Amino acid sequence: MPAQDDLKPVMTTEDVNALLASAYPQLNRDYRFYEAVEVFPGGCTVRLNADERHLRPGNTVSGPSLFTLADIGGYVCVLSHAGPDALSVTTSLNINFMRKAPAGPVDGHCRILKLGKSLMVFDIDIVAGGQTVAHATGTYSIPPKR
Amino acid sequence: MPAQDDLKPVMTTEDVNALLASAYPQLNRDYRFYEAVEVFPGGCTVRLNADERHLRPGNTVSGPSLFTLADIGGYVCVLSHAGPDALSVTTSLNINFMRKAPAGPVDGHCRILKLGKSLMVFDIDIVAGGQTVAHATGTYSIPPKR
Amino acid sequence: MPAQDDLKPVMTTEDVNALLASAYPQLNRDYRFYEAVEVFPGGCTVRLNADERHLRPGNTVSGPSLFTLADIGGYVCVLSHAGPDALSVTTSLNINFMRKAPAGPVDGHCRILKLGKSLMVFDIDIVAGGQTVAHATGTYSIPPKR
Amino acid sequence: MPAQDDLKPVMTTEDVNALLASAYPQLNRDYRFYEAVEVFPGGCTVRLNADERHLRPGNTVSGPSLFTLADIGGYVCVLSHAGPDALSVTTSLNINFMRKAPAGPVDGHCRILKLGKSLMVFDIDIVAGGQTVAHATGTYSIPPKR
Repeated sequence: MPAQDDLKPVMTTEDVNALLASAYPQLNRDYRFYEAVEVFPGGCTVRLNADERHLRPGNTVSGPSLFTLADIGGYVCVLSHAGPDALSVTTSLNINFMRKAPAGPVDGHCRILKLGKSLMVFDIDIVAGGQTVAHATGTYSIPPKR
Repeated sequence: MPAQDDLKPVMTTEDVNALLASAYPQLNRDYRFYEAVEVFPGGCTVRLNADERHLRPGNTVSGPSLFTLADIGGYVCVLSHAGPDALSVTTSLNINFMRKAPAGPVDGHCRILKLGKSLMVFDIDIVAGGQTVAHATGTYSIPPKR
Repeated sequence: MPAQDDLKPVMTTEDVNALLASAYPQLNRDYRFYEAVEVFPGGCTVRLNADERHLRPGNTVSGPSLFTLADIGGYVCVLSHAGPDALSVTTSLNINFMRKAPAGPVDGHCRILKLGKSLMVFDIDIVAGGQTVAHATGTYSIPPKR
Repeated sequence: MPAQDDLKPVMTTEDVNALLASAYPQLNRDYRFYEAVEVFPGGCTVRLNADERHLRPGNTVSGPSLFTLADIGGYVCVLSHAGPDALSVTTSLNINFMRKAPAGPVDGHCRILKLGKSLMVFDIDIVAGGQTVAHATGTYSIPPKR
């Protein structure tokens, strides 16, 4: 992908995790153990520390858990690059599941494909056990500045 | 959609709920309160009884909760129409979020678009508070008969 | 889907076809034979009269031809319900191909899932030879009123 | 994405272009000027030489033209890596349109995300005028070996 020199984070990784904890407490109570690992210009890395509660029949990390990681990846992209407005919402998300993901760390490598005034498009490679286990593309709406 | 006269459920709604409970206990522990409401030829209705734990910033039912309902809708379609093999897995799912969904019952109306030998395609209208709040399309792989 | 009483066409089927011909002449030159068949509150029906030029290996109507029909279906929805601004553009489209479509009429039955100020979401059942051959969901952006 | 050392092309770029021309003559008659530019382990680059016939209202390369490029990108991936069986078919494709693409060369950079026995998943960055103009993810079915 060509470089997008206009993309610069406006929040640190720590700030994003603190915001996730305060604005979205349900995330790490019911869908536990999601976190931002790194924020960088044009993207971020997020992680799910998957344990038994994230598994589905077949002993693989469940689709909803990987979807949540993808959704969080987009949320961290939009928070970190468009500013800490917790009311950005997902408008669409498309996910392909490719391989079984075992329990353990599941990393999501996110790229911002477009950061517009009212929409952000991103994709995410989801990697576990050294393999790409899922890939998603999604869109977040960005609320107008108040 | 033209009628698909070849589609007939092979499990009742009760059987499906019992199978969900035994094969996928995580579903109603961590992502609580999902159930099959009706199984009929060519589709099914599933429900999320959304409470505070399913909400995200903005007091709307979270994207992962609606994704889970869509995924469960497809799972109930494949279990009920292709037989109770718990190892069917989602291969892709695309979801659009259209309106905020308040806490309370969220119903998913599913249609089987194609039931093939190795893949099932379905869609789901997700309705809450009298409005369509989300729509998803997905694909389940069907394991070969043993 | 619950009724959306607020959705009313502002253009007739004839007006839409005339607008397609003048604003988008490439449509029926290189991707020939697409038309609006009916516009009704909350949706529309579009048709591809598929001949040999729309086929791909295997003698089935090609994916790009069915994608074009889906895209035109959304375009007719947005033109007819949001007004004749030819500059609305597709922001995303997801399509599943289910069965082979033979040459001949291919009908697209479109529903508007949401008509907002800046985005319209729709889906389309694509039917040929008495069967659903494809299904798509898409989003159009609506330019601000000048 | 982690390296996938098992992925190796079984056809050259020239072979793929010759196969496209013989198996799919409609491609470069009605949707003109699509070609494979490079085949490499785990992916390929394809190109649309867009001229006036590929434009839509607003003077941007049309959605169907970019969809066709994405679809051809997947087709070249599956032909080159799974073998020259022209009967592989697209089962799903999701595309996001991010920026206007001017007439001229439009390049599609494709990655194979998974090459299984019966399905291949790929994605494609579509670049024109130095910017990513669209991104797509898709699935091809691979017919059983005869």
